[in-house]
Amino acid sequence: MSKLQFTKHDFNALPRRFRARLINSLSGFKSANLVGSADANKNMNLSMVSSVVHLGANPPLIGMVMRPRTTEKGEPVQRDTVANIEELGYYTINHVGANMLNAAHLTSASFPPDVCEFAATGLTPHWHSGFPAPAVAESPLQMGLRLVEIVPFKVNGTEFVIGEIEWVRFAEAAMKGDGYVAIEDLDTLAISGLDGYHSTRLINRLHYAEPDKAVAALPQEGAQDIEPAVDFSAFRENKARR
Amino acid sequence: MSKLQFTKHDFNALPRRFRARLINSLSGFKSANLVGSADANKNMNLSMVSSVVHLGANPPLIGMVMRPRTTEKGEPVQRDTVANIEELGYYTINHVGANMLNAAHLTSASFPPDVCEFAATGLTPHWHSGFPAPAVAESPLQMGLRLVEIVPFKVNGTEFVIGEIEWVRFAEAAMKGDGYVAIEDLDTLAISGLDGYHSTRLINRLHYAEPDKAVAALPQEGAQDIEPAVDFSAFRENKARR
Repeated sequence: MSKLQFTKHDFNALPRRFRARLINSLSGFKSANLVGSADANKNMNLSMVSSVVHLGANPPLIGMVMRPRTTEKGEPVQRDTVANIEELGYYTINHVGANMLNAAHLTSASFPPDVCEFAATGLTPHWHSGFPAPAVAESPLQMGLRLVEIVPFKVNGTEFVIGEIEWVRFAEAAMKGDGYVAIEDLDTLAISGLDGYHSTRLINRLHYAEPDKAVAALPQEGAQDIEPAVDFSAFRENKARR
Repeated sequence: MSKLQFTKHDFNALPRRFRARLINSLSGFKSANLVGSADANKNMNLSMVSSVVHLGANPPLIGMVMRPRTTEKGEPVQRDTVANIEELGYYTINHVGANMLNAAHLTSASFPPDVCEFAATGLTPHWHSGFPAPAVAESPLQMGLRLVEIVPFKVNGTEFVIGEIEWVRFAEAAMKGDGYVAIEDLDTLAISGLDGYHSTRLINRLHYAEPDKAVAALPQEGAQDIEPAVDFSAFRENKARR
């Protein structure tokens, strides 16, 4: 089968939309998340973000790329999500589940500034106790973050929003004994390119790799290296604690 | 079904490995890529990276998170990949295909500094014409990047490596008429958590979302908005051109 090869000179010569779809396909599968935010008047915003990445476990940090707040000509662009995050200092990240795909995708439409994406798409705000930004009730994994830093990237005006995870909630059935969350069992979706949505099928979890050892699959229940075992019942929602 | 809920106080109290697996599961599905690099003496390095993200299409930019070059106690850690990228200014990103999963995972083992991950895992270096860093011949989508900037994140010492795509090659069969690359057809994998590898199943590509319009699936061949159509034969590898 023949291979295609594009160089940077080819990229420049390609039609603009073609190039955008091509380049957006190259990074591999992406996370599908909705970012929930609000301004000081509780005007809510919800937007699809495909650039959420893990940044560290201790402290628990997540980063995401936000588009430039100016056009290529330098004119300002209204970016509600990052403006809200700056204003309030808090936001939520919500996995997009198979059950909510169309509504989640619809948040990417250009609604007038006074239209709330929750109302426009039929998704339900979930106000986590005392937390100032709305989560998405339909989402199978919801978390609340506190803004740590917004790092501007000079090269193209994008911004990297870094947040610390304050809380997370998801169905207990997905929790494995070693700490792994089976997000596939939560029906979390993956994205390819600008508009491709995928469900997944686990091939294997693999043992921590070691030199001169064959790669092996982990058992269904995960690695057996947590001692003593963690008692999940202590983390059940609505359970009175602490 | 009961929901679990963890807060930042819970994170601190969890066993270290459990916490690492939990937090690493939260960002959603991740891209599975091998980063190929070399030092000035052509000593090659290959490492699994799950944090590759799209940064922009024009210029074509990709970012990735690299782990800190010091321990939590401030002691230096040898990080061959980012050291090579700094030294040479070029590197490759290679999708992990289903055919090469175990070998790709094995690159994450702690090999002695003088061991080349290509040799240790059986993967084959592919030297793209004149490009100074090795790609992975077995990978279904390979690209070469020029380092643009390394941005340090103060909060935890991670670094964000930004590169511009110089070339990309993949099977023509995956190229759609509107610029979308069907990476699922290339058998590119997705990652969850620290060690979960998944194949995917396309649910739908969705039309660009518009207010007051129902979300609809794109046809198999993609959007029909590229005029005139792009002639892929001009981009076939080995074809004499320019």
